[in-house]
Amino acid sequence: MSQDDTLARPAAAVPAVAVVVGTGLIGTSIALALREHGTEVWLSDADPGAARLAAELGAGKVLAPGSAPASRADVAVLAVPPAAVAGVLAGAQRQRLAACYTDVASVKELPLRAARASGCDLAAFVPGHPMSGRERSGPAAARADLFAGQPWVICPAPESSDACVTAVTDLARGCGAQPVLMSPEDHDRWVALVSHVPHLVASAMAAQCADAPPGALALAGPGLRDVTRIAAGDAGLWTEILAANASRAHEIITGVIRQLGAAADALAALASGDEDGAKQLTAVLETGRDGVARIPGKRGGPAPSYAIVQVVIADSPGELARLFAAAGAAGINIEDVRLEHSPGLPVGVAELSVRPEAAEGLAAALAAAGWPVASPA
Amino acid sequence: MSQDDTLARPAAAVPAVAVVVGTGLIGTSIALALREHGTEVWLSDADPGAARLAAELGAGKVLAPGSAPASRADVAVLAVPPAAVAGVLAGAQRQRLAACYTDVASVKELPLRAARASGCDLAAFVPGHPMSGRERSGPAAARADLFAGQPWVICPAPESSDACVTAVTDLARGCGAQPVLMSPEDHDRWVALVSHVPHLVASAMAAQCADAPPGALALAGPGLRDVTRIAAGDAGLWTEILAANASRAHEIITGVIRQLGAAADALAALASGDEDGAKQLTAVLETGRDGVARIPGKRGGPAPSYAIVQVVIADSPGELARLFAAAGAAGINIEDVRLEHSPGLPVGVAELSVRPEAAEGLAAALAAAGWPVASPA
Repeated sequence: MSQDDTLARPAAAVPAVAVVVGTGLIGTSIALALREHGTEVWLSDADPGAARLAAELGAGKVLAPGSAPASRADVAVLAVPPAAVAGVLAGAQRQRLAACYTDVASVKELPLRAARASGCDLAAFVPGHPMSGRERSGPAAARADLFAGQPWVICPAPESSDACVTAVTDLARGCGAQPVLMSPEDHDRWVALVSHVPHLVASAMAAQCADAPPGALALAGPGLRDVTRIAAGDAGLWTEILAANASRAHEIITGVIRQLGAAADALAALASGDEDGAKQLTAVLETGRDGVARIPGKRGGPAPSYAIVQVVIADSPGELARLFAAAGAAGINIEDVRLEHSPGLPVGVAELSVRPEAAEGLAAALAAAGWPVASPA
Repeated sequence: MSQDDTLARPAAAVPAVAVVVGTGLIGTSIALALREHGTEVWLSDADPGAARLAAELGAGKVLAPGSAPASRADVAVLAVPPAAVAGVLAGAQRQRLAACYTDVASVKELPLRAARASGCDLAAFVPGHPMSGRERSGPAAARADLFAGQPWVICPAPESSDACVTAVTDLARGCGAQPVLMSPEDHDRWVALVSHVPHLVASAMAAQCADAPPGALALAGPGLRDVTRIAAGDAGLWTEILAANASRAHEIITGVIRQLGAAADALAALASGDEDGAKQLTAVLETGRDGVARIPGKRGGPAPSYAIVQVVIADSPGELARLFAAAGAAGINIEDVRLEHSPGLPVGVAELSVRPEAAEGLAAALAAAGWPVASPA
């Protein structure tokens, strides 16, 4: 993340009083994070059971339907689906629930447009999107540290007041996140690029496996698995997400189709003996390499190039512990781990990613401790 | 892998004498595996240094250029690029190097067609493809266990003799692999599906990131990283691989483009307010889910559904050792590990995959040992 996109970081002034409307995973996690700073948090949800569960988890107190906190909240967080934000905002502003309002929807243009159309007070509304999530949903999956170190995009409307932009930025910081300022248009375009369209690309590739014989898929290695993994997501939920960002997703998917079309043309040329297809194919592949090199490796940092040390391990309890103990004893920090093993085989291979300068030392330390190590290449 | 596709498994009769032509990663690894059974292995390579290095690694003895072993080899393995197989086969058969010949090229129709056109003795030739590989190449990266438990596709030509099919199957088993019988046509179609086209799909998605601003890519999560990871491969090498399998790859990529086109149409409909687009989008996503559910999770086994236990860990040496020691002490086998942490943050999250029935016990054991654990959802 470039310095320009990240707000300077004074001590965060967390809100003294906050309301969380919608106590699902994100709303409850925000409430839990604020509670750790002593914020007075009020919880409401269309499902009273969800609000009660969040309260029992220590996320705050249940706000009776239709009522407001005794002292008006500094911020109200509307943690409801994109299509519901404008209606909930209008209702909350009629009740004068809070001085400032934000939402957490995964698209930003649609709720802002709807809020403007509903006549909401946009000076008090600062749309936001914490870039955190889990495979699971609901208050029981909430964690106070869900946002720790993750980007939290803040997309002020032209009408948003400076005071409310500051309040919502402080809220994000109070949750441990890194606030990132961006226009709603840029936000929606870039989440289409980094999240929505990759999902469709994974789906389209996985769809080709729907009718393949089992013997064919038994040849699959980690490559196909990586490319298609996210296609396992809930189809109904992803339809909603994509529908709310349809025009931005359409822009990006059109680029993907154009690139695949160039590859298909090159393959057709090669299949008919036209060697010029090779040049075109290389161009497609090189653009892909350029692109993937620009994607940060772990969130927030530049893509590190780790060295990989491979170790053959027994597929039994305690083996990884022994392995990591040997690495830890050598003072080496494992940055990432991948395990590859075939069920039924007694051994597998652990691929340990470490900083390049640590690879040789790790290989030597593990070999000295009796591990079968493939020397780093 | 279905029983039908896997050959019945008598004790493997490894060759008494073998020649390996081409001592790169695959050739040298085969030689090392055969040496463990006491096979007399002779090594040759267009680069004499590569053959010498393989011999120094214990892979066998260097065969002087143009000469043959004193006793004719049972099998010669031609571990050379796809386009070189037919020429090397013709030369080796002129020398009467071996009773049977096989190759290890990643496509099977092209070398067989070329060998037939060159007038080779196809009764003695049984094309093969061990489905093993590493990111690294060359004899120094070779490992005797490279094939352990992995599929080794064997694609007899109509002309192949039963004796040579048996000899090559025994060779694969002797290397620890699981021989899988398949026609050359099926092989090439399915490697296009599970390997070649996924590479292009990853490239086409990654290409969209080539011009995106850094602030956009800072929003990327594990989804985009997974989808695009393999696009980092060498563009020249992948051009060769795809060119050798151009018509099969074209068939599969056409299916991907058709599916993405349906998604693009659905998005365009939704962007213009036509709600029928949602149904079409759901259909695309559901076909993707069906497909990904059929891909084996780890090579050779059905996709297991593991439960995930999340643990917050400090980003410092020894932390993973302590974590796995606690899991091992509880007698629980970790099936897979993912680490997610932001550089600069002192903590990260380890996601431990375990058999569902073990998840609760693991979470309890780790919590008892003082780890901050998110309860399995």
